[in-house]
Amino acid sequence: MPHFDLGALAYGADYNPEQWPREVWREDVRLMGEAGVNLVSLGIFSWAQLEPREGAFEFGWLDEIMNLLHGGGVRVNLATATASPPPWLSLAYPDSRPVTVDGVRLEVGARQLYCPSDPHYRALSVRLARTVAERYGTHPALRLWHVNNEYGCHIDQCYCAQCAARFREWLRARYGTLIELNRAWGTAFWSQRYGDWAEVQPPRRAPSFPNPSQGLDWRRFSSDNILELHRAEVEVLREVTPDIPVTTNFLGFLPGLDYFRWAQEEDVAAVDVYPDPAGAAPHLEAGMVFDLTRSLRGGQRWLLMEQATSAVNWRERNAPKRPGLMRALSLQALARGADGIQFFQWRQSVAGAEKYHSALVGHVPPERSRVWREARDLGQELRGLDFLRGARVKADVAVMFDWHSWWALSQASQPAVTPLLPVVGAWYAALRSLGVNVDFVHPEADLSGYRAVTLPQQYLLTPDAAQGIRAFVEGGGTLVMGPYSGVVDGDDHVVPGGYPGLLQDVLGAWVEEWAPLQTGEEREVRWADGRVTPVTEWTEVLHADSAEVLATYEADFIAGQPAVTRHAFGQGYAYYLSTRPDAAALTDLLRGALQGAGVAIAELPDGLDVTLSDTGDGRLLHLIHFGPQAVTVQVPQASDARSGQPRASVTLHPTDAALLRVPVDFSLHELTARAAASIPT
Amino acid sequence: MPHFDLGALAYGADYNPEQWPREVWREDVRLMGEAGVNLVSLGIFSWAQLEPREGAFEFGWLDEIMNLLHGGGVRVNLATATASPPPWLSLAYPDSRPVTVDGVRLEVGARQLYCPSDPHYRALSVRLARTVAERYGTHPALRLWHVNNEYGCHIDQCYCAQCAARFREWLRARYGTLIELNRAWGTAFWSQRYGDWAEVQPPRRAPSFPNPSQGLDWRRFSSDNILELHRAEVEVLREVTPDIPVTTNFLGFLPGLDYFRWAQEEDVAAVDVYPDPAGAAPHLEAGMVFDLTRSLRGGQRWLLMEQATSAVNWRERNAPKRPGLMRALSLQALARGADGIQFFQWRQSVAGAEKYHSALVGHVPPERSRVWREARDLGQELRGLDFLRGARVKADVAVMFDWHSWWALSQASQPAVTPLLPVVGAWYAALRSLGVNVDFVHPEADLSGYRAVTLPQQYLLTPDAAQGIRAFVEGGGTLVMGPYSGVVDGDDHVVPGGYPGLLQDVLGAWVEEWAPLQTGEEREVRWADGRVTPVTEWTEVLHADSAEVLATYEADFIAGQPAVTRHAFGQGYAYYLSTRPDAAALTDLLRGALQGAGVAIAELPDGLDVTLSDTGDGRLLHLIHFGPQAVTVQVPQASDARSGQPRASVTLHPTDAALLRVPVDFSLHELTARAAASIPT
Amino acid sequence: MPHFDLGALAYGADYNPEQWPREVWREDVRLMGEAGVNLVSLGIFSWAQLEPREGAFEFGWLDEIMNLLHGGGVRVNLATATASPPPWLSLAYPDSRPVTVDGVRLEVGARQLYCPSDPHYRALSVRLARTVAERYGTHPALRLWHVNNEYGCHIDQCYCAQCAARFREWLRARYGTLIELNRAWGTAFWSQRYGDWAEVQPPRRAPSFPNPSQGLDWRRFSSDNILELHRAEVEVLREVTPDIPVTTNFLGFLPGLDYFRWAQEEDVAAVDVYPDPAGAAPHLEAGMVFDLTRSLRGGQRWLLMEQATSAVNWRERNAPKRPGLMRALSLQALARGADGIQFFQWRQSVAGAEKYHSALVGHVPPERSRVWREARDLGQELRGLDFLRGARVKADVAVMFDWHSWWALSQASQPAVTPLLPVVGAWYAALRSLGVNVDFVHPEADLSGYRAVTLPQQYLLTPDAAQGIRAFVEGGGTLVMGPYSGVVDGDDHVVPGGYPGLLQDVLGAWVEEWAPLQTGEEREVRWADGRVTPVTEWTEVLHADSAEVLATYEADFIAGQPAVTRHAFGQGYAYYLSTRPDAAALTDLLRGALQGAGVAIAELPDGLDVTLSDTGDGRLLHLIHFGPQAVTVQVPQASDARSGQPRASVTLHPTDAALLRVPVDFSLHELTARAAASIPT
Repeated sequence: MPHFDLGALAYGADYNPEQWPREVWREDVRLMGEAGVNLVSLGIFSWAQLEPREGAFEFGWLDEIMNLLHGGGVRVNLATATASPPPWLSLAYPDSRPVTVDGVRLEVGARQLYCPSDPHYRALSVRLARTVAERYGTHPALRLWHVNNEYGCHIDQCYCAQCAARFREWLRARYGTLIELNRAWGTAFWSQRYGDWAEVQPPRRAPSFPNPSQGLDWRRFSSDNILELHRAEVEVLREVTPDIPVTTNFLGFLPGLDYFRWAQEEDVAAVDVYPDPAGAAPHLEAGMVFDLTRSLRGGQRWLLMEQATSAVNWRERNAPKRPGLMRALSLQALARGADGIQFFQWRQSVAGAEKYHSALVGHVPPERSRVWREARDLGQELRGLDFLRGARVKADVAVMFDWHSWWALSQASQPAVTPLLPVVGAWYAALRSLGVNVDFVHPEADLSGYRAVTLPQQYLLTPDAAQGIRAFVEGGGTLVMGPYSGVVDGDDHVVPGGYPGLLQDVLGAWVEEWAPLQTGEEREVRWADGRVTPVTEWTEVLHADSAEVLATYEADFIAGQPAVTRHAFGQGYAYYLSTRPDAAALTDLLRGALQGAGVAIAELPDGLDVTLSDTGDGRLLHLIHFGPQAVTVQVPQASDARSGQPRASVTLHPTDAALLRVPVDFSLHELTARAAASIPT
Repeated sequence: MPHFDLGALAYGADYNPEQWPREVWREDVRLMGEAGVNLVSLGIFSWAQLEPREGAFEFGWLDEIMNLLHGGGVRVNLATATASPPPWLSLAYPDSRPVTVDGVRLEVGARQLYCPSDPHYRALSVRLARTVAERYGTHPALRLWHVNNEYGCHIDQCYCAQCAARFREWLRARYGTLIELNRAWGTAFWSQRYGDWAEVQPPRRAPSFPNPSQGLDWRRFSSDNILELHRAEVEVLREVTPDIPVTTNFLGFLPGLDYFRWAQEEDVAAVDVYPDPAGAAPHLEAGMVFDLTRSLRGGQRWLLMEQATSAVNWRERNAPKRPGLMRALSLQALARGADGIQFFQWRQSVAGAEKYHSALVGHVPPERSRVWREARDLGQELRGLDFLRGARVKADVAVMFDWHSWWALSQASQPAVTPLLPVVGAWYAALRSLGVNVDFVHPEADLSGYRAVTLPQQYLLTPDAAQGIRAFVEGGGTLVMGPYSGVVDGDDHVVPGGYPGLLQDVLGAWVEEWAPLQTGEEREVRWADGRVTPVTEWTEVLHADSAEVLATYEADFIAGQPAVTRHAFGQGYAYYLSTRPDAAALTDLLRGALQGAGVAIAELPDGLDVTLSDTGDGRLLHLIHFGPQAVTVQVPQASDARSGQPRASVTLHPTDAALLRVPVDFSLHELTARAAASIPT
Repeated sequence: MPHFDLGALAYGADYNPEQWPREVWREDVRLMGEAGVNLVSLGIFSWAQLEPREGAFEFGWLDEIMNLLHGGGVRVNLATATASPPPWLSLAYPDSRPVTVDGVRLEVGARQLYCPSDPHYRALSVRLARTVAERYGTHPALRLWHVNNEYGCHIDQCYCAQCAARFREWLRARYGTLIELNRAWGTAFWSQRYGDWAEVQPPRRAPSFPNPSQGLDWRRFSSDNILELHRAEVEVLREVTPDIPVTTNFLGFLPGLDYFRWAQEEDVAAVDVYPDPAGAAPHLEAGMVFDLTRSLRGGQRWLLMEQATSAVNWRERNAPKRPGLMRALSLQALARGADGIQFFQWRQSVAGAEKYHSALVGHVPPERSRVWREARDLGQELRGLDFLRGARVKADVAVMFDWHSWWALSQASQPAVTPLLPVVGAWYAALRSLGVNVDFVHPEADLSGYRAVTLPQQYLLTPDAAQGIRAFVEGGGTLVMGPYSGVVDGDDHVVPGGYPGLLQDVLGAWVEEWAPLQTGEEREVRWADGRVTPVTEWTEVLHADSAEVLATYEADFIAGQPAVTRHAFGQGYAYYLSTRPDAAALTDLLRGALQGAGVAIAELPDGLDVTLSDTGDGRLLHLIHFGPQAVTVQVPQASDARSGQPRASVTLHPTDAALLRVPVDFSLHELTARAAASIPT
């Protein structure tokens, strides 16, 4: 399998020269040099330029750009250009346009206007990929294939007849017989029994709550169906250019695609990350995605394929990135294992739907632009950080995450509507405030490398996954599990007998009944040490059979009953939370659990981001500060990673960063950090 | 007409054995015995099991279940199984799928997927009903027909071409000529005059406000059209099994169906009731429906056909019923005249859209389940309450309610959007806080049996209804009428001359202009005794010609003008409120009006539910306490209805109930109740 | 060009006699006489009555009404009756029904059910207009043609295939070649390049953000396309009745139609105005529309074609007009140049979607109706105000407004969603609080007549408009410009180089980056005099090259940087606000700017509305008081305009008005006004 290797950290952006006259191209290459750009993603939206009429290709302009870039020392991540079919395709093949759940067939004027099942789109996009590969496969600038773009960003499900037919094929392959499909979908309920494959449909608009198992399979199919499109392009590229690595840009926690499955198709994982600068904690929002991306391919280094230099254009109100924030987030990506920092886009458009998305070269000329200066300076800074390419980020702690469980949880008709990401985000934030590296782990992955595995809300657990968790705890691992987890199996069938059906022995406790709270409702729990802390959203009737009770409910019909438990199981421990505590109490619980599991932690002030990475011969401590107040960090025996100078104490103002080298046996315990109160920020 | 008579209070649930393997069936019958179950509703969603292919029937499994149940002493309310057509029907007859107002034809995957006008659905469902009736009509377990299920729950209007054609037929029958239709619909307005029947359409999506008279007729048609479906099944059942009573389960204040009309088709009224356990007053929410159901068939006893043992699955956040609440609500249903308590459902599903709806046998085994214990105990308790079957609930006070007025009020383009049910609920709550039994009465019903009739908001009044009200007051009745009542006639035409057009003489007052308040806006009224109380939502320019002024407005351009009036008319009195007072002031007004009408009242603490019922030889006093604080109730000369022991004082903790026998001349005046402050709750 | 001249101020209403029996007609004419009605708008919704079947006309009833009215001294503004096609047309020509963005074809039951491109609707409506014109062109009652009604009120865009075809024709005419269209729409972006005209579509529902240039052209086309319909009718009328003026009723700030363009087709501008009586300032809401309507045709007198006597029916909650408000708003219209006051409608309907819209003759008989009395009194008052017909309202100050900029600003994918009208309204209110007359001015209009021109938010500026503004300032004018103005050109392309692209020299300042604030977020600015005031919604990184800094930001990364600047340019001054201050600070800034520009201002108490108009030989001062507290106004040398009596001091209670004659050299400086604290209101 070819390996992406630029010989340096990658730095660059999406480059869309087709929007600009030739005279701008040369200026662009000059400025790229100034900013240290060594890689651009080229031609993502150039199908209509490359093939202005069906079968009539025009490559001259792209030849010219490829040569210009190469001459300027810029390598190319070349797109297959299939992300946005030209209007002629939509007109000639009307069924290539996707259809909404209500049956509306979408129209030209935006992008990603294709039905993933349409044979014409499939054939034409694969032909384009082949044509591009054959023409540029040996071009010296080519270093990576950028297949399509942000799959599933707008169209992750199409409800047309073609997709219905493929859905039926997919179901046949999955279930073999209608008997098995009827069992899996529980069609004895509501007289839904299918007697013929032709009766089976996508979950289009229905009179009432749709069948949740059908809904879950539909999401699985939709992810797989788009993945087949992707595979078709990748296959051609691997055939024509076996030595050029391929990737496509993921979108982090995108609802539509099972990236754990997708990532196995790539030679390197790549991701687009757009945290909201006006959000409460952009670095946590971004950090979660960085850690996920690294986790998708077992800790391999990855690429930040797109971020914004400043504001985006697609939120209702788009704040700019304040000075320093873009650099700090970029360094955070490198800390978490990125091999390059790319932006959307190089030069800001003056027309179209993304003209207000920031870029390296904006509407304002570079010499007048703070954004340009920061981007240029970062490019130059990266030249001194190439040693990071050898580092690996290892984690003792994992957060379990799984698209199938997310899809199942998103089906209608639940005890309560519970958006998953805020829950996962709260647990992630609590763990990160303790300084520990965090992986995201698939439920059926090998857990043996972790000391502690957390399940913020793993609604669906297959028997295999449950068995893996049991073995993990038995073998000495620490499990921390949140409410409404382990409820259903892979068919979205409840495992009966008390919740969580397959893990009661591990928890030493079982749930009799759920008692979701109303929006705004609050209860309290009392901890063993007497503290009383608030809980919201969810409570449960929990019975501690053999588990130790860590906290009890204070009121309602469950007053005095267990709220949080701990159970020694095999060589390990299993913690169970039956409710949603606030951030402080959640952190306290996780701190205790991690300490019990022998995980080294640190106590960090608000906004201080710490990552430990391993080089072959030592460890790097990445300190990046996103908080509002300056902090001082003490790290005995540390030295500056670039200069080699001893640096046992570091003061970081907001958006400051430090990169320290620490001994190979360094433990987070040795780090102390506090507000630098006397230092003006 | 056959009479439903089980020889005991019915107790049981919907039973869906097709979701379970045979080994579970025997266990179910055993547990039913333990819980005192004597009736189950069987086969509601079994069409796809009974007729897996068109015309191919499979009854073996149902035979087996019927025999098993009968052997276990459980009788059957057998469904015609037509509520949810199987997928094969939707595929073979695509026009059987209903269409939304926007023209979206709905798809398989849920339930109730049928257009009420589709001839194929009609023919196939009637054939199924006949086949079931012929096979089981003489089965000894059969006691009641459960026709279809929750008609109009999801699909109460279908906008397809078939429905359009039937709408035109219905209109022809109603109006005879287009001239009359044009008059009734006021088509001189906005150039809507119809020159040919073919031009008439359902009120599909239109450029602006639709014609409200058309909208009203459409709702009438839609209710009648579904009723025709129902009649077609009932007809077959009456032909094949003339001795078996029929029913279908109503849904209380369902917007789509005129249950006053529907109830005349049943042999016994039955209703499904799902108050929100997290709501402010579940017992009022449920009690309204209980009283409505009894009122639909003139006070006859009725069946609670479905309720939940604990949580439902279809709200955004579904709270469980706290311990004791299910029993208390069940006893309340019996107090209000129910002849049985049934649940949805017997055994909780593990798959499908209702797997999180509670049941008697839940996901947790019975021996571990509080919900099971409560349900089992209630079943056993019911065996001691069979004497209730002879009781009747009589009311001196009625709340007027009418679907046609509700539909007219729901049309767009009103002085203000005024949801009806909160208004009716507020009046109902005020009346119930005074201890009086309450009926709901149709506007054209005979009112002579009541001492007081209230109209919280009766927007539409036919001339006949107005004449009935006039005669009622003239004859000595007391009328209490709220604002925006009596505005339009049966065609939704305003009766001109000052509002309410047909009742000004009765009120001795007339309304010149409405002045709806904005959301959150508040005004005040000053009562004769000097109290000043807040009003919201609505005010009016009211003129008291011959009426006495009970309250005046405090501010705005109507300062000093009448807000509330009373008028002696004939032998009776007519009260008029031109605004919406708060609960306390509304209760005060109603208290005065009832006392003036000679209605005995009591002053009840918050949450204490009191019902008086008449047996042949005496009266029963049902006391059920839903409030948060214990109360003590004094009832001289009362005795415990079960033990016969004297019981002049009762202390009730939350969800406690007492059933007392009181003398035939007992009056509510004799009851006193107060917070049991010194008693720990 | 024929001139509308009734010889008096017009007074009357829409009259829909087809809704009433003949006996009501005579009563109507009698009451019209009592109320001083001299003009009615007749037959607006009478197509179905005039042509009950295609080609079969029935005019007898209209002949009768025309004669009756004429006999009663009432003149007629006769409708072409094309606003609402009859159901037979929709049935015979299904494609005449418009289609939504989602592809839903709308249905009969409301009004305005026509696709503007449908040839059948076009032909039939033009034939009807001709037939009506030929029949009544010489009727002595006829004074004005009322063409169609409220064009674009409900259907301002139709997405059907016919409209798509006409859109392509319109684009061909605009751009000539696809090359030019591709350039203007920036189709190099997202692979949208069009290779054939047939590929071009309306901006129907798409997978993601639509192309904003396409969206802008679609709005332009939609306005022009409806205008063509209008022109087709007008052409026929001008051919048949060259001496009868034509008009159609505008809707003020209606989003869909470019009234600056439309107004050029009329002989007199007419407008329907419905401020919310429950709103914060109905007189500002209405006043903006009055001033816009006058501005559309260069200050010519105009007609208030519709207003409500009291409540409307189409808001969610419809407050009545309190006593006096209708008169005060009517006098305000006259002050701003109206030549007549008309209402919707004469007699309130008892059926249909507008039966709760108030009228002169309501549901309550006139003798019982406050609303009638006020309308009748106003009609009589107008007979003494005919001298107003010679007055002109001139303004030194203009607010720039333009539909094309509004459309561009309304496209998706902006730095922040910024509804335009609240911004324009805030600036208008601030200017009006200083007593000055205000025009609305088109960006490409001649600005030389003004001393000061304000641009609250002029997002789109063509190079011609920018040049006009530059010349205006150079020539001595004062410009006050708000943020996010001058960003794009006529193609919705950003003018690069720093914002605003074409006016940096005029401002002496330039914007590097936008920093929109989140909803609820607040910042502060510090003014030269030390005051610190709050700003919201928007901030900018603003650089003052040669401009004077009037205020700086207090915090965030732009602390200390300019927020407001002033620049001497040529003979004039250019002010720039980079943020949204509160009302007080905005007023302070505008006061200073106007004073610097030599504009006379007054300081007015809350709610006092002042207008100066010029007669040939003097000036009229219109004082109308909408505030909650009485005020006293001192105007030396003033006299009562009706009686001629000296009147140097006037006390006005809420809704009071005074009309004073002042010398030709009167300046607003001479007016002083204060709360009449000691006078009971």
